[in-house]
Amino acid sequence: MADKNRKTRTKPRRLKGFRDIDAADVLARDGMIRRIRKVYEGYGFTPLETPMLEYVDALGKYLPEADQVDGGIFAFRDEDEEWIALRYDLTAPLSRYVAMNPLLPRPFRRYQVGPVFRVEKPGPGRFREFYQFDFDSVGTSSMLADAECCMVMCDTLEALGIARGSYIVRINDRKVLNGVLETVGGGQPLSPEVSANVLRSIDKLDRVGLEGVKALLGKGRKDESGDFTAGVGLTTSQIDIVLSYLGIESESCASQESRRTVCDELERLVGDSAVGREGVDELRQIDDALDGAGYGVDRAIIDPTVVRGLAYYTGPVFEGALTFEVVDDAGVTKQFGSVFGGGRYDDLVERFTAQKVPATGASIGIDRLLAALKMLGKTDTRSTTTDVLVTRLDENLTKQYQRIVAELRSAGVATELYVGNQGIGKQFKYASDTGKIAAVVMGDDELQAGQVSIKDLRLGDELSAEIGSDRKRWLEQQPAQIAVARDQLVETVRTVLKRYADV
Amino acid sequence: MADKNRKTRTKPRRLKGFRDIDAADVLARDGMIRRIRKVYEGYGFTPLETPMLEYVDALGKYLPEADQVDGGIFAFRDEDEEWIALRYDLTAPLSRYVAMNPLLPRPFRRYQVGPVFRVEKPGPGRFREFYQFDFDSVGTSSMLADAECCMVMCDTLEALGIARGSYIVRINDRKVLNGVLETVGGGQPLSPEVSANVLRSIDKLDRVGLEGVKALLGKGRKDESGDFTAGVGLTTSQIDIVLSYLGIESESCASQESRRTVCDELERLVGDSAVGREGVDELRQIDDALDGAGYGVDRAIIDPTVVRGLAYYTGPVFEGALTFEVVDDAGVTKQFGSVFGGGRYDDLVERFTAQKVPATGASIGIDRLLAALKMLGKTDTRSTTTDVLVTRLDENLTKQYQRIVAELRSAGVATELYVGNQGIGKQFKYASDTGKIAAVVMGDDELQAGQVSIKDLRLGDELSAEIGSDRKRWLEQQPAQIAVARDQLVETVRTVLKRYADV
Repeated sequence: MADKNRKTRTKPRRLKGFRDIDAADVLARDGMIRRIRKVYEGYGFTPLETPMLEYVDALGKYLPEADQVDGGIFAFRDEDEEWIALRYDLTAPLSRYVAMNPLLPRPFRRYQVGPVFRVEKPGPGRFREFYQFDFDSVGTSSMLADAECCMVMCDTLEALGIARGSYIVRINDRKVLNGVLETVGGGQPLSPEVSANVLRSIDKLDRVGLEGVKALLGKGRKDESGDFTAGVGLTTSQIDIVLSYLGIESESCASQESRRTVCDELERLVGDSAVGREGVDELRQIDDALDGAGYGVDRAIIDPTVVRGLAYYTGPVFEGALTFEVVDDAGVTKQFGSVFGGGRYDDLVERFTAQKVPATGASIGIDRLLAALKMLGKTDTRSTTTDVLVTRLDENLTKQYQRIVAELRSAGVATELYVGNQGIGKQFKYASDTGKIAAVVMGDDELQAGQVSIKDLRLGDELSAEIGSDRKRWLEQQPAQIAVARDQLVETVRTVLKRYADV
Repeated sequence: MADKNRKTRTKPRRLKGFRDIDAADVLARDGMIRRIRKVYEGYGFTPLETPMLEYVDALGKYLPEADQVDGGIFAFRDEDEEWIALRYDLTAPLSRYVAMNPLLPRPFRRYQVGPVFRVEKPGPGRFREFYQFDFDSVGTSSMLADAECCMVMCDTLEALGIARGSYIVRINDRKVLNGVLETVGGGQPLSPEVSANVLRSIDKLDRVGLEGVKALLGKGRKDESGDFTAGVGLTTSQIDIVLSYLGIESESCASQESRRTVCDELERLVGDSAVGREGVDELRQIDDALDGAGYGVDRAIIDPTVVRGLAYYTGPVFEGALTFEVVDDAGVTKQFGSVFGGGRYDDLVERFTAQKVPATGASIGIDRLLAALKMLGKTDTRSTTTDVLVTRLDENLTKQYQRIVAELRSAGVATELYVGNQGIGKQFKYASDTGKIAAVVMGDDELQAGQVSIKDLRLGDELSAEIGSDRKRWLEQQPAQIAVARDQLVETVRTVLKRYADV
C-alpha cells in the first residue's frame, strides 16, 4: 500500500443546476425582497413558513416512478418508506396547511418567500433551486381578491423602480377559455386531452405567431430547425373560432380603449356557453374593482391570449410582464416578458377537505425579476457592509488598533478590523477586494508622533496593485494617504467617505 | 365499482419533526435575524448563500448506508445515482465553497442564515428542519479572529436585549484538552476512541456533576432510571488528573478574577505537553484581544469544561450561554444554557485542497434563542402588519370602500380591504382575529349623511363576540364605535390607533 500515507482528497463539487450566491447578489436580492414584502404587507398579507419537505401525496400533481428521481421533483423515501419531496412551489404546501388548520381566519391571507426545487434540465438562468415570493387569499370567491392580486403586482413592480409603461398586467379567465372550447366543440365539451392541447397551442402565440397557432390547431407545424410538432387536428371552422378569439387581442387589446370593450367582444364570442358567460362576468367584476381603485389600462389589461401553464387554475389568471426590450441568446429583440404569475384555484384545498375553499394568489419569480432589475440598474450594488478597514501594520500595536475600531464604530462608521495573517500590502488588497472605501494605518512612528494615517482606497487602488506587498516602497509613495493628528481620525475618515457618498 | 363517484380524499399531513411557522413566529424570528445580521455586518461579515442540497462526499462526516435514509442526514440518490443530501449545517458547505473558489479574499468572512436538516428523533422543541445563523473567518490563523467570534457573540446577545450578566461566553481550547489527555496517557497519546470517550464524559459535567464524571471515567455510572453507562476504564491516578483539571473550573472560574489566572493554572496542569502549551498560549492571545477590546470576565470567561461536540474543531472552542434560570420538563430549575457555539476548524478545507486553510467561526441556534427571547419578553409580538380593516357592509358601495382604503394608505396608515364573502359580524371577527386595531364601516345611510364609522376593535372585542353575525342587534349596540364626518376619517382612525401605540 504505497499510497497509504497520501491522504485521499475529496473533489469539491456543487450539484448541477445549483449555485452559490455571493454577497453582492444576496444583498441585491434581499433588498428587493424587502421592498416586495413591504407592498404585500401593506395589503394585509402576513407571513407563513412551511417546511422544505412534504409528503408527495400532499404536494399532488407529480408522482415519482418506482425509486427513481423523476417527474420533475426531488423525491425520495423516508425511514418509513413513504415518498417525500422537496417542495416544487409554495401553493401546494399552502393548501395542505389550510386543510390542516380549519379554524384559520377567512380569507386567510399569507405571503411566503423561499426556495423551491425542480428537476429540470439546467441552463443559463435556469436553476433547480430558485426563489419564489407568493401571496394568496384563501377562502374567498370575491373577484375583489383577484383584482387585488393585479393591483399588488402593479404596486410591487413600481416599488422596485419599474416605471408605469414599462410593465403591464395581463388578465384572462380560464372559464372564458373553457367557453371558447365549448363553442369549438359545438356546445359539447372537448375531451380533456384535446382541450389541454388547444390551450397549449394558444399559449404559444408569443413564440409562433398567429399562423403558427393555426398550424398547431390543424395538421401540425414544422419549425425553423425542421422539427415537426403534431397538430390538434381541429376542422377549419373550429380553427376559425379560436383564431377570431385570438383576434380580439390583436384588434382591441393593442389599443385597449377600455377593458369593457374587450369583455363585450368576449361575451359575443362565448355565445351561449354558461361557463364562458360566467368567465366574462368575472372579468367584468375585476374590471370594476380595478376602475374603483384607479388602475387603468396603462397598468392592467384584459388579454384573451393569457393561459398560464398550471393545471389547477379554475377562474381568473393573470401575469405581470416587463415590456422593455432585451436581446435574447439567439440575437432576437423581444420583450423581457413575464415575471409575475397567478390565478384562482378553487379546487386545490378541496382535494383534502371535500369542502370548497376558493382561493386566488400570485407568485414572483425572484431570480428572473432580479435579472431584469439588474439590466435596468435598479438593484443595490453593494458587496460590502463596512466602509473602513483598520489595518494591522505592527502586531504589537493591536490594542491601539482595537481602540481605533471602537472609536470609529461608536461614531457610527461601519468598520472592520483586519484579522488575517498577511502583510500591509495584502491588507490593502483585501480592503479593496472587499469593497472598503478607506483604510486606517498606524505604525510605531505615527503612534509616537500622535498621528494616524487614512488611505483613500479608491484613489489609491491603482498604485497599491503596482506596489504589491513591498512594504518599504509602499511607505515611501502614498499619494492617496494622509497623516493627521490622532484626534482627527473620525473627522478625516468621514471626509474620505463623503467623497463616495453618492456612489 | 360503487365508490367510483366518491372522490378519494388525500389526508393533509406534515412530515414528523417539521413544522409550519405562523405569522407571529415568522415576524418575531425575522426581527431577531435582522438585529443579529446588523451585528455580524458591523464586523465586516457579508452574506453568502449556498444550496440546500450538496453531494454527500462534499459534506463529509456522515455517510448514508446502502439506500436507506440514515446516518443523521436526509440523503438520496440523484439521477446519476450519486448520493446527495440536504445540508446538515452551514460549515461543511462553506468549506466546499472556499475550496472551489481559491481566489477569494483572505480572510474570507461570510455570514449565512437558513434551514439545516437532520434526521433526529423529534421531540418538544427538537425539529428536523431548523435555522442556523453562522459567521466565519476562513483563511486566518490569528487568534484575533477567534477573540472576535467571542465579541460578536456578546454584542449579538446584547443587541437582542439580553442584559450583561444574563449571558456568558465560555472559552476553551481543544489543544489544552489534548494536552490533558496526553498527561493522562503519561506522555503518550491515548487511542482516539478513549480520547473521545474522555471528552464525552467531561462534556457531561453539567448534567451528571463531578461525581458522575468520576464514575464515567472509571467503571461506569448508573443513572436515576437505573440505566447503566459503561465507563472509560481509566485508573484512579488518571481520573485524578482529569478531576483536578475540572477542578480549575470550580475553584477559579466561579470567581474569575481574571482569565489570566485560569491560563496559569492550565499551564501548570498540561506540564510538558507541547500541544497543551500551544493551547494555553492560544487562550492567552484570546484573553489579550478581549482585554484590548474591553471585554471583561463579566462577558467572557475561560472555562476548561467546555468541549463542544463537533469532531472537526482543532483549537479554541467557545459557546454563548444564557444564565437566567428556567424550569425544565422534569421540573428541575437550571440555567437556560448554550445558544451560540463555535470554534476553530483548521483542517476542514484541507480535505479538498491539500493546503491548510485555517478557519474559525460560530453559529447561533436560531430556534432555541428565539425561545429564550420569548421567555424574556424580548421579541416582537405582532401577528399583523396592518392596523385597520375597511369592511364591506354594502357590496354596492365597494368603490367608496376602495376610496377610503386609498385615503388611509396615502396618509401612511397600514390598511387592509376586506376581500372575503362574509357578513359584517364575521368581518369584525376577521379583523380581531388578524390583529387589527380599528375597523372602518360605512352603510348607505352614513354615505347619505356624509359620515363614516370607526370601530375600536380592542374596546369592542368582547361585545362583538357576543353578538356574532346578528347584524341588526349589532347596529343598535356599538359603544366602541363612533360616527364622524367623512372628512375626519383619517384623524379619527389615528386617534384610535394612538390608544394602543405603546402596545
